Amino acid sequence: MSLIRWTTAVAVATVALAACQKAETPEQTASRMQAETDSARTAIAAQNARFVRYVNANQADSLALLYPADGVILQPDMPAATGRDSIKARYAALFAPGGVMTLTTVALTANGPVAIERGTWTYMIPAQGKTPAMHLAGKSLVHWHKVNGQWMFAEDMWNNDAPAPAAPAPAARH
Amino acid sequence: MSLIRWTTAVAVATVALAACQKAETPEQTASRMQAETDSARTAIAAQNARFVRYVNANQADSLALLYPADGVILQPDMPAATGRDSIKARYAALFAPGGVMTLTTVALTANGPVAIERGTWTYMIPAQGKTPAMHLAGKSLVHWHKVNGQWMFAEDMWNNDAPAPAAPAPAARH
Repeated sequence: MSLIRWTTAVAVATVALAACQKAETPEQTASRMQAETDSARTAIAAQNARFVRYVNANQADSLALLYPADGVILQPDMPAATGRDSIKARYAALFAPGGVMTLTTVALTANGPVAIERGTWTYMIPAQGKTPAMHLAGKSLVHWHKVNGQWMFAEDMWNNDAPAPAAPAPAARH
Repeated sequence: MSLIRWTTAVAVATVALAACQKAETPEQTASRMQAETDSARTAIAAQNARFVRYVNANQADSLALLYPADGVILQPDMPAATGRDSIKARYAALFAPGGVMTLTTVALTANGPVAIERGTWTYMIPAQGKTPAMHLAGKSLVHWHKVNGQWMFAEDMWNNDAPAPAAPAPAARH
């Protein structure tokens, strides 16, 4: 190959590499993240649908498998719980007979294998005996992490929109 | 330029572009994110130190400026509040005279302009008249966003590790 031909090839390759190695501009980052967020939305909605189905079926085992092995829940009025065994035990203690949950995504931001989802939730507990029905509502912030192509609840926090109704006095339950 | 010279240049450029356009491997992503997390840690610690200083000085104005214009707080037992005016009003209502806050980062994950921080907090309220001292403790999950080179609290959620102590009956306050 002639020197001129090599020079041309190297020059073209250098321009190509310079173009690709340059860091994203903030606009390019925002645009790439928007595309990644759009693409994560469906998969995360499917995971949330599973979450709701397992809560409503009182399946704490299945719920815990939506979290990675080192997943963490940050539940109101309890210390954080880490790992599937702890998460399973916490959910099992939260289920109310006949309780029906809904989840709504309010905001989602994805960047590569990381996503943050802000949401709202409701949990309707039917009346039981003399205990009146309860309509709980609140919000959530979830750090999703994509593990082997699957979005999982890496860190999952929630709280309530209003103080929980006082538990009825034991005498009122019978 | 001869056809052969062009062909060579295009071939070299194609190889160069293919090498650089290849997506990161999961290992490369994890390693880059670890470096970005290490580099974000100091700046986020400095923002948290400001947060604590403003809470302890009851400076709701300054606190609100740590949030972007569309920042959101997800406070226990209240609906979400969006924007600096709402955030300022919420914090002003939370301050207790002489209250002292601490914040500790437990886990941090950064990826480009996005970071997620899990933390713990304490808030010590000294006794006042017949109202005993209160030691509150809880946890937080923060979606940080880097805006014009500055890490800000984009979405900030917290809750408690235990139910809040019952407010004393009005008669007990005097």
